[in-house]
Amino acid sequence: MTDLRTALAEAVGIDHVLPDSPPEYGHDESLTVAAVPPAFVVRPGSTAEVTAVLRVAAAHGVKVTARGSGTGLSGGAVPDGGGVVVSFERMNRVLEIDTANHAAVVQAGVTLAELDEAAAAHGLVYPVYPGEMSASLGGTIATNAGGMRAVKYGVTRRHVLGLEAVLASGEVLRTGGKIVKESSGYDLTQLIIGSEGTLALVTQATVRLYPRLPAQATVLAPFPSLDKVTAAVPDIVNSGIGPLILEYIDMVTMSVITANEGIDLGIPAAIRDKALAYLVVVLEERNDERLAEATEEAAALLTHLGAPDVYVLPAAAARRLIEAREKAFWAAKGAGADDILDTVVPRAAMAGFLAEVAEIAKDHGGLAVGAGHAGDGNVHLAVFQPDAEARASLLRDIFAAAVSRGGAISGEHGIGHAKKSYWLELADPVAVALMRRVKHAFDPQGMLGPGSAFD
Amino acid sequence: MTDLRTALAEAVGIDHVLPDSPPEYGHDESLTVAAVPPAFVVRPGSTAEVTAVLRVAAAHGVKVTARGSGTGLSGGAVPDGGGVVVSFERMNRVLEIDTANHAAVVQAGVTLAELDEAAAAHGLVYPVYPGEMSASLGGTIATNAGGMRAVKYGVTRRHVLGLEAVLASGEVLRTGGKIVKESSGYDLTQLIIGSEGTLALVTQATVRLYPRLPAQATVLAPFPSLDKVTAAVPDIVNSGIGPLILEYIDMVTMSVITANEGIDLGIPAAIRDKALAYLVVVLEERNDERLAEATEEAAALLTHLGAPDVYVLPAAAARRLIEAREKAFWAAKGAGADDILDTVVPRAAMAGFLAEVAEIAKDHGGLAVGAGHAGDGNVHLAVFQPDAEARASLLRDIFAAAVSRGGAISGEHGIGHAKKSYWLELADPVAVALMRRVKHAFDPQGMLGPGSAFD
Repeated sequence: MTDLRTALAEAVGIDHVLPDSPPEYGHDESLTVAAVPPAFVVRPGSTAEVTAVLRVAAAHGVKVTARGSGTGLSGGAVPDGGGVVVSFERMNRVLEIDTANHAAVVQAGVTLAELDEAAAAHGLVYPVYPGEMSASLGGTIATNAGGMRAVKYGVTRRHVLGLEAVLASGEVLRTGGKIVKESSGYDLTQLIIGSEGTLALVTQATVRLYPRLPAQATVLAPFPSLDKVTAAVPDIVNSGIGPLILEYIDMVTMSVITANEGIDLGIPAAIRDKALAYLVVVLEERNDERLAEATEEAAALLTHLGAPDVYVLPAAAARRLIEAREKAFWAAKGAGADDILDTVVPRAAMAGFLAEVAEIAKDHGGLAVGAGHAGDGNVHLAVFQPDAEARASLLRDIFAAAVSRGGAISGEHGIGHAKKSYWLELADPVAVALMRRVKHAFDPQGMLGPGSAFD
Repeated sequence: MTDLRTALAEAVGIDHVLPDSPPEYGHDESLTVAAVPPAFVVRPGSTAEVTAVLRVAAAHGVKVTARGSGTGLSGGAVPDGGGVVVSFERMNRVLEIDTANHAAVVQAGVTLAELDEAAAAHGLVYPVYPGEMSASLGGTIATNAGGMRAVKYGVTRRHVLGLEAVLASGEVLRTGGKIVKESSGYDLTQLIIGSEGTLALVTQATVRLYPRLPAQATVLAPFPSLDKVTAAVPDIVNSGIGPLILEYIDMVTMSVITANEGIDLGIPAAIRDKALAYLVVVLEERNDERLAEATEEAAALLTHLGAPDVYVLPAAAARRLIEAREKAFWAAKGAGADDILDTVVPRAAMAGFLAEVAEIAKDHGGLAVGAGHAGDGNVHLAVFQPDAEARASLLRDIFAAAVSRGGAISGEHGIGHAKKSYWLELADPVAVALMRRVKHAFDPQGMLGPGSAFD
């Protein structure tokens, strides 16, 4: 048999097999998963080349890890040491913006920023903003990325209409298309979304676009307790104002991000001192009149729900606050956080869950602070506990608390390598056994996404 | 081994094993799938009883068909002649309306009407209205039901947060919950939705509820051609008015439904005579001021887009028109239609597709007329061609035309028995082979949903 390097070079061209296990392809942004430089990195330029690579890998019995921009937070892009990384950096074309069907067709390596720019040129938006615009479409599909706007638009799986993906066998699978409903066989699109590269390698996606509404306002409401924040959410949803963003930021996190970014939100010290949590409500509307009306309605409602005062932020301050909130991961990392979690619970359980989390952290000699998607019950926790063993025990108890409240370990980052042991312990064993059988139906040799989710 | 009847009686109680192959459990509302009375019908009262039934069926090697209200249109509820029908009529409890999390927990046999009533009592709505409120939640999950409001809210899979389902092995699977995002393993909820009872028997669902917006208006716009209707849709979507309903009704269908129901829409004969197609735009808002504003905006836009006149219907007429449109299936059946299709295409392809459908029908000595979800490209065709062989050829050509335009055979009714041969011929063979392997992963003995989708 031809040696692996030669065979890969035949598949993608000699220039696109990188030399000597480049270390930058051995990790993502997970704080805890150790880097593993892969034996080979290939950069296919087409779906046919991806097929060729998978056929070579199968013939040589090596594992394959898909890589987008490497911005994942669960180690899903960390490869097998003897394996091949398939980097989608060259498959980065926006193939079509279809304004008649409100859809875009993109290659897997296109970044959110690139798609955003292409959609914006037509007054449209792809509404997945996980806080990292350099993330690739393929990566966000692999993790079913969410982000702050999910409270209005929903997560990635709501917006992916169809996929082209290469199976472990090298066969090319095509699902869905520019259609928004289909009841014709099992929904393989949905099955592949969130599968973290373990079922198939996504090469192309058809995603839904929406009108880019021009008018936005940001309302900031300090609350005396997180309970009050949580209790306010159902009423905000019931009001029908349909916020674009509905975030809570705890006192510690707010201090850090405003200090880091030098943002002055204009909140008097007397109010700031009593605020244990902030609710950020961003509204978007199709014109300024509607926006003014909705902003007034939101402000009145927040006051009624117990906010001692309500601040409609100037546009520049609002933008900086949201940007800073998007960078909360980096702020936490900069502050020395040892891990970042994205646990999800039923949103009404959020305050109780966070109180329990504080207790758990204390019991394990650690600290857990955060911000999160209040409308979705999706809690981002920065965990401080440098000792790996104590931290593992702390995380296990946090995840168990989430699951016991009807939640899940990950709301949007995925399981990857980082949370696998917790997930295998805490998830419904009937579900896990079934997922293993589904994995086997797609990838009988266990070639794709080694080490992610399953062993 | 105990005989089958005795074993089933032990599983669900003697009173809930129906005597003598009752014929009403042998069919659904499909116009073409022949009824097959099952050997046994059981009516379990709990998930544990469903488990017991499946264990008995496995031990006796008989097939199992789930049955909700029997309102399906693809023969999915037609059982195997020697098999067991599991009717969910007794599992009909709304277990919880959770206003803090905007979710409902229901047993599979609850009807849409029952859930609608329970949700309405809290000012909430479950937004799936497929036009048949006696449909069960289990049935609508099995087919991923859509309906007129899907243009705003999306189809069933957007609203199901979690499932309890019994596998062929009798094991109970629990997925999701009162959480709106999750990236923790494969999304088995989504995989089971739309699987037409072939993967598992859904016993309970957690679904999402939304605020029930109080203000509605209906705008009717006659258009001189279907092309103009299709061309208007992207602009309506772009405007951001976000209609609740965006339907087209062709001239023939409009005459039939207004005549059947005796509805006078107040459109002058001169306009009516020139209208080849109607666009029905229903708006919903959270207050009357917003509604008045949106209605004016919609009317101006429709005029701009080529409607010779625009009619804001009085509430009673609007309600009757929508009700009549919901009954279009019955009107078509009453008019002697030989089949009803629910083909979906990219919405911009709708006018071209329908022109091609008219040609295809003519070529096969038949007729195909309809109404449909213009915003979703989902076309309901009443097909008139009494000769089964000629009709099969006509249908095959219609489906092939839809698939060649990037569409699918069924947008919301499912494949069932009725469209299986067409689907197996026209769907991506890589996808079908993969679905067979997924089916095997769930149900290795091929016990569930005999004859639906796969052979």
